[in-house]
Amino acid sequence: MTKIPVVQQILSANDAIATENRAALDAAGSLGVNVMASPGAGKTSLILATARRLPAGLRLAVIEGDVAGRIDADTLAAAGVPVVQINTGGGCHLDAPMVRSALPHLLPDGVDLLLVENVGNLICPAEFSLGTHVNLVVASTPEGHDKPYKYPGMFAAADVVALNKADVAAVFDFDFEAFQRGVRMVNPQAPIFVLSCRTGEGLDAWVAWLLAARRAETLRRASG
Amino acid sequence: MTKIPVVQQILSANDAIATENRAALDAAGSLGVNVMASPGAGKTSLILATARRLPAGLRLAVIEGDVAGRIDADTLAAAGVPVVQINTGGGCHLDAPMVRSALPHLLPDGVDLLLVENVGNLICPAEFSLGTHVNLVVASTPEGHDKPYKYPGMFAAADVVALNKADVAAVFDFDFEAFQRGVRMVNPQAPIFVLSCRTGEGLDAWVAWLLAARRAETLRRASG
Repeated sequence: MTKIPVVQQILSANDAIATENRAALDAAGSLGVNVMASPGAGKTSLILATARRLPAGLRLAVIEGDVAGRIDADTLAAAGVPVVQINTGGGCHLDAPMVRSALPHLLPDGVDLLLVENVGNLICPAEFSLGTHVNLVVASTPEGHDKPYKYPGMFAAADVVALNKADVAAVFDFDFEAFQRGVRMVNPQAPIFVLSCRTGEGLDAWVAWLLAARRAETLRRASG
Repeated sequence: MTKIPVVQQILSANDAIATENRAALDAAGSLGVNVMASPGAGKTSLILATARRLPAGLRLAVIEGDVAGRIDADTLAAAGVPVVQINTGGGCHLDAPMVRSALPHLLPDGVDLLLVENVGNLICPAEFSLGTHVNLVVASTPEGHDKPYKYPGMFAAADVVALNKADVAAVFDFDFEAFQRGVRMVNPQAPIFVLSCRTGEGLDAWVAWLLAARRAETLRRASG
């Protein structure tokens, strides 16, 4: 009986720091996006493809979460994106304290859009608020259309879903309608963008949505 | 400072029950395999493809671990494989107590080979012993060849690695040598089987290895 109180303590401590992170992002005028997915769904590819399509002058920064290594951070840095690497050292998700430790390395230089690439994991990251404004879940067609049914917590937590690798859907007998029905079972309204980071299909619509979400957040702050 | 002792307590309780599970498997003459992978790597496909290639008379049973649902268990049952579904209800891995609760539903009918399909997750399952004899990690080419570098704990824990979806490797610019180097950085000796559950490529070699592992375990018991 000692376990449950300890877990609650961790989660509420996390939430308190997530609230601080949100305040820091708001003060900096940044929209924060928590990018979650299975390993290899294409989180980094989507971040790179998004970076290439942002309007000139819009300042992007990235926090890279990985169990180990800095492969993706190196890729992003080579593309000229300001990036901070967080290694969880075995941990299966980012948490708010980790993000808090990264923010001072990025926000002082001016950040309009902060993409936080979580650890590749379709379960645990959904349970830990980071203080970001938007939860993006990246799925991909090789994983199969049954993922929303098997990992409902992640898809329920999504504000927006990107379905990547759409160009190879036929190879994997991917059923788009079954995928969409699965998302809708747990999430009545998150938009679903079908796209391919390899071919570029669907990326303009996704980036337009992201920029609209940023404008809406900026207006909300101005009116609040 | 209260967290660490509680976690150790959970892990050692898990290990004690894993030891009981191992004894139950040994008494039943079963080889137990913990099948771990990312979501959508092809765990169920590999179990089905393996089932079709087993010698007549060898009795297979499966424990299916999922956060939610019974999609894969239904598929296996339809193929005539005795199967027990475990839903973790949000939990990100199977543990030894969950497997213990499933064994009485399977072992009394006679099981030569027990495949335990863990929750789709490339991190947490590696930390919880189930009492099985073999850790199988299933990777897949759409996930990318960098996975061993990013999830070293899982690949270090592998006794054997299956690299699935080899037939579509070219589509994803999958670098087999980079993958193999990554596995070898953390795991000097686990055999790596390159295969495709869709085309059947490489499956005979994998099944031959599995049957040899079962024979070796049977001999070890007989001589012990």
